[in-house]
Parts: sequence; C-alpha cells; structure tokens
Amino acid sequence: MATSNAPTLILSGARAALAAAEAHANRIGVPMNIAIVDSHCHLLTFTRMDGAKVTSINIAIDKAFTAAGHRVPTSSYKENVWPGGVAFGIWNTNGGRFCPIGGGVPIISEDGHVLGAIGCSTGTPMQDEEVASAGRDAVLAMIKEKVAVQTRKEEERQTKRARSDVKPVESVIFEGVILDQAKL
Amino acid sequence: MATSNAPTLILSGARAALAAAEAHANRIGVPMNIAIVDSHCHLLTFTRMDGAKVTSINIAIDKAFTAAGHRVPTSSYKENVWPGGVAFGIWNTNGGRFCPIGGGVPIISEDGHVLGAIGCSTGTPMQDEEVASAGRDAVLAMIKEKVAVQTRKEEERQTKRARSDVKPVESVIFEGVILDQAKL
Amino acid sequence: MATSNAPTLILSGARAALAAAEAHANRIGVPMNIAIVDSHCHLLTFTRMDGAKVTSINIAIDKAFTAAGHRVPTSSYKENVWPGGVAFGIWNTNGGRFCPIGGGVPIISEDGHVLGAIGCSTGTPMQDEEVASAGRDAVLAMIKEKVAVQTRKEEERQTKRARSDVKPVESVIFEGVILDQAKL
Amino acid sequence: MATSNAPTLILSGARAALAAAEAHANRIGVPMNIAIVDSHCHLLTFTRMDGAKVTSINIAIDKAFTAAGHRVPTSSYKENVWPGGVAFGIWNTNGGRFCPIGGGVPIISEDGHVLGAIGCSTGTPMQDEEVASAGRDAVLAMIKEKVAVQTRKEEERQTKRARSDVKPVESVIFEGVILDQAKL
Repeated sequence: MATSNAPTLILSGARAALAAAEAHANRIGVPMNIAIVDSHCHLLTFTRMDGAKVTSINIAIDKAFTAAGHRVPTSSYKENVWPGGVAFGIWNTNGGRFCPIGGGVPIISEDGHVLGAIGCSTGTPMQDEEVASAGRDAVLAMIKEKVAVQTRKEEERQTKRARSDVKPVESVIFEGVILDQAKL
Repeated sequence: MATSNAPTLILSGARAALAAAEAHANRIGVPMNIAIVDSHCHLLTFTRMDGAKVTSINIAIDKAFTAAGHRVPTSSYKENVWPGGVAFGIWNTNGGRFCPIGGGVPIISEDGHVLGAIGCSTGTPMQDEEVASAGRDAVLAMIKEKVAVQTRKEEERQTKRARSDVKPVESVIFEGVILDQAKL
Repeated sequence: MATSNAPTLILSGARAALAAAEAHANRIGVPMNIAIVDSHCHLLTFTRMDGAKVTSINIAIDKAFTAAGHRVPTSSYKENVWPGGVAFGIWNTNGGRFCPIGGGVPIISEDGHVLGAIGCSTGTPMQDEEVASAGRDAVLAMIKEKVAVQTRKEEERQTKRARSDVKPVESVIFEGVILDQAKL
Repeated sequence: MATSNAPTLILSGARAALAAAEAHANRIGVPMNIAIVDSHCHLLTFTRMDGAKVTSINIAIDKAFTAAGHRVPTSSYKENVWPGGVAFGIWNTNGGRFCPIGGGVPIISEDGHVLGAIGCSTGTPMQDEEVASAGRDAVLAMIKEKVAVQTRKEEERQTKRARSDVKPVESVIFEGVILDQAKL
C-alpha cells in the first residue's frame, strides 16, 4: 500500500492527560511544566503551572518529544547513555532535543500503537515521571472506556442485524390456504 | 531600589485568553495554534487545535515571544522591516525567533504594563491576529472586572472602617444623668 | 474522541513518487535531489541523482517539509513573502527550515488529506516543481487505482452477500408436485 | 599537482548498499532508518522503513556523516570519548553532528579509499551496525566483481592486442611452396 492509517492522540485526549497530570502535580505539591505531543512528536499542548521553572519549559517539551519518538520512558536509558554505554552521546542528536532525563513517558494503546507522549519538568525526575504517568494513565483509561462503549454499540448493531436478516415471511396462498414459508 | 514588582500574566489569565481565542477560532472556522507567554516572554500555554498546521506551531510561539518582548502587535512592523526600513533584518535576531508576521498581540493592562502576549498561527495573518485579539480582549476584560470587584470590596472595607472609626461615646454625666454622646 | 486516525504516505508510496520524479528528471536532463516526507513532515526517502548539487540536498528536504506542513506548493508564496507581503520573514521560522522557494509540492488525496510532500532541488525552481509534480501525480494515480480495485472487490463482496441472502429454496411437495419456491 | 581524482560512491553504489541493508533489516525484523553518504559526507540516499523511529532519522544520517568523515565505525570510539578519554567532548563538534553511537560504518575500497559510509538507526547500536555492515559488504562485493570483470576484459583486450601484434607473416617460399608461418 502507498499509505497507511495510524492512530494519534488529538487535543481532547491531550487535555484529559493534562488535567490528570495537573491534579497529580497539585497533590504532590510540585508545580509542573507539562507538555504533550502526538504520535509524530509534534506539540499538542503545553502548560506552565504557577511556580514551575522557566528553564524547565523546553525540558518538558523535549522529554515528550523524545518519549514519543523513541517509544520508551526517558528515564529508561540509564547506563546505556553513561560513559561505557552504547548510546553515549545520544543527548546531542535531533538538534540537541533528545532528552535522556526522567519525566517523559510514551502513551501507548492496548494494541501497541504509540499515540503520543507526555513530558513533565520542575521536580525531581522521579516526581516528573510520576506526574507524567498520571496523565498517561488517565487518557488511556478514557480511550479504553470509549472503546468499550463502541464495542457494546457494535455488538448491539450486529445483534439487530442478525435478527433482521431473518426475512419477514411472505405468505403463500395455495388453493385457498395460507402457507407459512418459514415452516416449509 | 534594588528590586521591583511588576505584574505578569499567570496561568489562570492565560487560560481565560486561550478559551476566548479558541472560541473565536471556532467561530471563523480556522483551527489555530495558540501560544501565550508572560511578560518575560516565557511560554505559559500552548494549544494546537485539531487541524492546525504543524509548521505553524513554532510560528505561534515566536509571534507571542516577539509581541511580548517588543510590546507591539507583530503586524505593525510593515515598512520598518522591508528594504529601506530602519529595522530591516530584524527577523534574524533572537536566534531567528523574532517574527514580524501578523498574529501576535501584546496584552497590556490599563496602566500600561505588558502582562504578556498571545500568538496565533495557521490562518492568514489577519485571521491569526483576529483570534489573538479575541483572547487578549477576554483576559483584559477579566482583569478589569476583577479590579472593579476588588475596588468595590476595598471601598466597602473603607466605609466599614470609617464607621467603626467613630469612637465609642464616653458617658457624660450631667445633673446625675448619663447622656449618650452619640445622640448629642 | 481522544485519538484520530489519519492517512499518511509510507515508504512504498514514497518510492512510487520517487521513481516517477527520477524518470522525469532524466527526461528533462536535470539531475535532482528528491526528498519525500510523510503527512507529519518526517523524511521518508531522499535521493541525490548523479550530478545534483550538494548545496541542494537540504533545500530539497526543506521544500518537502514546508509543503507538507503548510499544505501548499512552496512556489505559491510569491508576493506574500516579498517586502510588503503579510508573511515577510516566514523563511526564518521553524528553525530556518521554512522554504518559500518553488520545488515542493504537497501530496493531497482526493478526499483532501495531506498525505505528505515531495521536494526537489538543483534545477530552476520551475524545473524542480515540474519533477516534484510528476512524482506526486504518479503516487496519487497509484492510490486511486488501488482504491478503485478495493471498491470493486467490496462491491463484489456485497453482491455475493446479497445473493447468499436469498435463501436457497426448499422444494415444496404438494400433491406430488415439486414446487419451486422461487417462482411463488 | 593542483588537483586530484579520488573515487567516491555514487547513487548506483548507494542503492546496492541500501538494498542489502534493507534485506538484512527485514531478516532480523528491525525496521531501520538507513542513510548513505559519499566520500565527502554528503547524503546520497536516505530511507525510512515502515516502523522505524522518527527520532532515529537524524541519528542515521549523522552516523553515516561521522563514519565517512572520521573513517572508522562509529562504534569504535568507546573509552576515547568517555571521561578520561582523549576525545572526550567530540560529540559536540560539527554542529553536534558527530555521532559516537554504533551503527555507522565507512565503506572502504580494497586499495584503502573511503568511498562513503552507511548509517542505520532504530534498533540497538549492535543491530544498527549489523545492518549497516550488510550494506557495506554488498556494495564492496559489487565493486570487487565489477573490478574483476573489468580486469578480465582488460586482459582480453591485451591478449588480442598481443596476438595482433604478431606481424603478418611473410610468406616463406620453400621448394616453391608458400608456407604460412602461423602454422609453423
């Protein structure tokens, strides 16, 4: 095929993730910069909560960019990017946007598609990742619920169709007697 | 003095502007990238509406950056930046972020403070500026209303204080009778 | 919805476009740099034909990037980006990647989706756009043919289903005579 | 001399390498970004196989750039670029394009010329280097075969020339009989 269709997060999904991430940031008392990108690493939303660091703005955006592009949490590189590691130097790639600091998590659907990613910054990387994860979990739950609703509706449609496939019998009149075709 | 306090837009103000800008974008049927920065040109929020161009993401952010920094709408440069103009070449400054394309408007309070700016992109520069202006007007109206409310509350407080400033009367004894000064 | 599916060009489509573009470049005797991006502006293929300019490599890639992102041929900006134009300065956006030079054309499906873009460089912008257009036309024709084939197959499937919905007649024996229900 | 001729890979060679690299990527089940540059580090071809990471596009191109420029596999730097190493900091050179991550291999002819390089990215650096090596081996084999064919043809030409260098026989008259020297 010359083309393909692939799912990606859109603004409504990004906002669901953002709301949950903000709520969690408030819960732990760390104001965050929160960036959400789509499956192609392009920014969907960015939010700087009151008190978040201005030097964390770009970091949050780059964490999201990196997590969506490389499909793993930005905290996962560890020894791979330290001296001795096979990916030492990777922070310089993509025009310096590759960010191997914890706080970015990909948003991956149940059937394995990377829909986007969320990146947070201002706290410790562990706090950043915690907030990002809360956002990711919320939008995945929202998607799962929508899929469940759709599945139920589709099943109902198929049930109705099956029932209507049974054609209404036309009566047959023969010698003055009505024959029910269904019984023939 | 060694320091000063200056007002700046914060997230709640940015969100008010964002909501109005989005509503206007929907009214005119042009999905927008909408960026809002504070008085120091730092990003507060960014939103990409469904259908907005991915190559307009940075443009919206740069328009807001430019409008807040230089304190005038980005549409206003005109002949100043064309050949023969005194600011010819300015687009290359600030690491290439200076954007002399219409769509960025500063948010200036009634007493002349630049609180921030809003930048939009995807439509024509005229449409972009229209949407940005809707956002700016909304948050300025919100600020004006809050100021008005605050002013009324302050006036009420002052009135109460004035009344309670009337000192409790000292009794006057006259001919053996206590007289309430208040009645005198 | 939290997510959406949108079509994008993939490698097989890019290769069809590339082959046609190369053939046309050979026909007009101008060796080209040919870049093809997907609907999100990410590079799918790049080819430098023998004799193409090395300083045209990035130009071809940027033309494709710009055409996919802004959804119009890069030759279309004209007076809009010249002094006096509303988008004067746009070449500096997107980190300097926005290229308002002819030679980039978006690849847009019949139902209006931007699937990607193709950018060419080394000849005059007019020659570049000619080659890019040949590539775009080829892949759109390929997609149209595949859709036609799919449509025919779907129609055949529906026809078969309709026929099989007609239940096979059970013979009715009446007074020793077999009656074909279909005729009743 | 004021000038020199040096061999460099061209598109046909790049395509041979690309085909072999793609085939190997398919064999190991890892879709790759594959970039091939010439002896001057300039991009000849780039291909993103379906499923390759978009944040690996630039990495593949930079690996090829680095391998062709510095003439060794990008995996070979190891302790030289780690703290304590003599080339510590090299990742920042060349505008950040120097990539000391495995996956880039130079293409060096039998007589020691660097003809170009191939860089791959999306898998582990070890997988990337494996695929790049398959590409390099294929084009070197192709070059070797062509050289062998050329050598054979040249030898045949020389042989023909040698035979035709045998002067036309002067007839020898003996006992009145013309003898053909060729038969002597």
